[in-house]
Amino acid sequence: MALINENLLKISRKYIFPIIEERRDKLKATLSKDEFVDLGVGDVSYPITKTIVEGLKDVADEIGTNVIGYGPYQGYAFLRNAIIESDYKELPISSDEIFVSEGINSDICGIQELFSIEAKVGIVDPAYPVYYDLNVMAGREHIVRLPLTADNGFMPEVPSEPLDIVYITNPSNPTGVAMTRESLEMWVKWAQKNKCIIFYDAAYAGFIEGDGLPRSIYEIKGADEVVVEFKSFSKSSGFTGVRLGYCVIPHKIAIFDKSGKEHKLNPLWMTRQSTKTNGASYPIQKAGLAALSKEGQEENKAVLKDYMKGTRMIVDALTSMGFTTYGGVDCPYIWWKVPSGDSWEWFEKLIEECHIISVPGEAFGVCGEGYVRLSGFVTEDEAQRAVRNLSRLEAYCAH
Amino acid sequence: MALINENLLKISRKYIFPIIEERRDKLKATLSKDEFVDLGVGDVSYPITKTIVEGLKDVADEIGTNVIGYGPYQGYAFLRNAIIESDYKELPISSDEIFVSEGINSDICGIQELFSIEAKVGIVDPAYPVYYDLNVMAGREHIVRLPLTADNGFMPEVPSEPLDIVYITNPSNPTGVAMTRESLEMWVKWAQKNKCIIFYDAAYAGFIEGDGLPRSIYEIKGADEVVVEFKSFSKSSGFTGVRLGYCVIPHKIAIFDKSGKEHKLNPLWMTRQSTKTNGASYPIQKAGLAALSKEGQEENKAVLKDYMKGTRMIVDALTSMGFTTYGGVDCPYIWWKVPSGDSWEWFEKLIEECHIISVPGEAFGVCGEGYVRLSGFVTEDEAQRAVRNLSRLEAYCAH
Repeated sequence: MALINENLLKISRKYIFPIIEERRDKLKATLSKDEFVDLGVGDVSYPITKTIVEGLKDVADEIGTNVIGYGPYQGYAFLRNAIIESDYKELPISSDEIFVSEGINSDICGIQELFSIEAKVGIVDPAYPVYYDLNVMAGREHIVRLPLTADNGFMPEVPSEPLDIVYITNPSNPTGVAMTRESLEMWVKWAQKNKCIIFYDAAYAGFIEGDGLPRSIYEIKGADEVVVEFKSFSKSSGFTGVRLGYCVIPHKIAIFDKSGKEHKLNPLWMTRQSTKTNGASYPIQKAGLAALSKEGQEENKAVLKDYMKGTRMIVDALTSMGFTTYGGVDCPYIWWKVPSGDSWEWFEKLIEECHIISVPGEAFGVCGEGYVRLSGFVTEDEAQRAVRNLSRLEAYCAH
Repeated sequence: MALINENLLKISRKYIFPIIEERRDKLKATLSKDEFVDLGVGDVSYPITKTIVEGLKDVADEIGTNVIGYGPYQGYAFLRNAIIESDYKELPISSDEIFVSEGINSDICGIQELFSIEAKVGIVDPAYPVYYDLNVMAGREHIVRLPLTADNGFMPEVPSEPLDIVYITNPSNPTGVAMTRESLEMWVKWAQKNKCIIFYDAAYAGFIEGDGLPRSIYEIKGADEVVVEFKSFSKSSGFTGVRLGYCVIPHKIAIFDKSGKEHKLNPLWMTRQSTKTNGASYPIQKAGLAALSKEGQEENKAVLKDYMKGTRMIVDALTSMGFTTYGGVDCPYIWWKVPSGDSWEWFEKLIEECHIISVPGEAFGVCGEGYVRLSGFVTEDEAQRAVRNLSRLEAYCAH
């Protein structure tokens, strides 16, 4: 008799984003386009840029002429080299340390398979809910929350107990705060000391603008011994529906068997990928190459700037009404401290009074309670609408 | 200290296809194009057809104009409906039982996560090596081989012991043999009786031509209670590098917890997919839609016919020389009984004497020993070259 993986029964709640999407679709159906603003799941608001469209058309012609079969499991060298050129030029990372995939969600979910089920896991809280759920599904029982609070500036503190795996997002989803160099240095040192591997989700790294803030974890000395960096085209190139990402697994990173023998993580991931995948789509890898071209990068930088402009408009509106917000500087997420009640209450209030879809902070973890996340992935029009609709909250303001 | 998943250390051999590819690339580099024939990993030999190329160009324009964000985790309804129309029109399968993905390798590797690690697993032998490796990586210890031999006509027999999960490929990779309706009926009945779930890999179903042979497992009564069918665009539409596939999880299929309570597999897979993936690429789903259009299907049928023609030329050449082969009728794989020695010896002999890349049968399991797999995914030119080069084996013939 086929028995279930009983760990699945431990996931009590429905995954949050489908719930949000359901509410959004319902609201959308009852309102005119002018009335409604989606600041929910953090999806993009602009179409794909011109250079990428042209790249995709070119590859369509190419695969209609040349035979393009199975690609390399690790991704094509043309894309891995372009990634090095664009993101790691001055850093100690080489193209055979890059693994291209159809998106980092799969990578983040896959890489824990290489680790013992007994591994002690640390996860920032609030965080993308997948980190937690996926470890529960896998059967891990020792999971520690690393709180992100106003008191610690939303930067995780190293725990007093040793851990084996730690999940960090920088800039943080949902708080929108980017970690300082000092904080990252502290984490790398701690991981080296504890022989802990850090899964470093840098999906929003393309938005970092602050002086001295690292754009890649490999700017920190020693990070190439203990950190796997995950990077995505989803937000930096508008690829949420196109699907492309990569992870960086430096040759130096090792994990251990019970006898204490070292096993390098890079070839282990290669074995896993060549068993469980057939590489990322060739046309999409070519679209990614177009995104990394000079023109592609310029076009996308302009889009990212627009998102940050919209984010700033919303932050300013809330601030001028007397509300407290965090984030929204190096990442287009606004972490809004709700003035009273809980985050689900405000999620509902925002729908009813402002026709705005948000994400209740509690959905990101217990430390998210008391906050609501607003996505700044909006056009200028949408930002203006959000500002207009938020003004209906005047009654709840501090002043 | 980060410890390894020790099950990974039980995978003693390197995954076979990268080894074959390495040998191919080496041979290719030393020979002229006319001398060398690749009958190895079973990759496609024709470019993408015209209708798909046009579909991909159209979607490039579309995503440059409209905002296409995250798609449905299950795949877009337009594609799931087209799949029903093309493959399941007369069968009791609905579009919400279809889950689209970037390829069935990921699906086949993912779905076992929903099952207990204690599950007793049956795997046809010879088979695609991933089924075995993936269960070892997951930590399953009770794995039974279901032999495919000349004596049983390369159709697996139901085992005397109960099993919880069984992997069947039909038509078989590597033997190229399609199972009869009677054999499939026997398996479905056995699975119902044992509350066993069958993972039915139908990647090559598009090649089945024999009278009365089921094109889908759901032609068999009761299969929608116990069988998950996996289907791929890789071979039917030349998508090995484009990446698209789907699995069918009928609503009726249930697995059980320790208390005997039933859990439906379809929503469990939905939870897994919405946690671990973000859906398949929108442009590629649109390319798949083009492949399923009337014109797309006609173009691809012509390509499949060409592959079967090339396969037949190679089979005829070997047969007329006195060699024994199986398969090659409802699937472009030729399962060649080597006249002496082992399969790795013949793999080497084919490289040295014929400049042909094959796959040694032993790579597919212990029951594959004594055979070599030749892929018939060739153009007519390549088939002619293969026939010419194989004639150099005259000395080893039976007559």
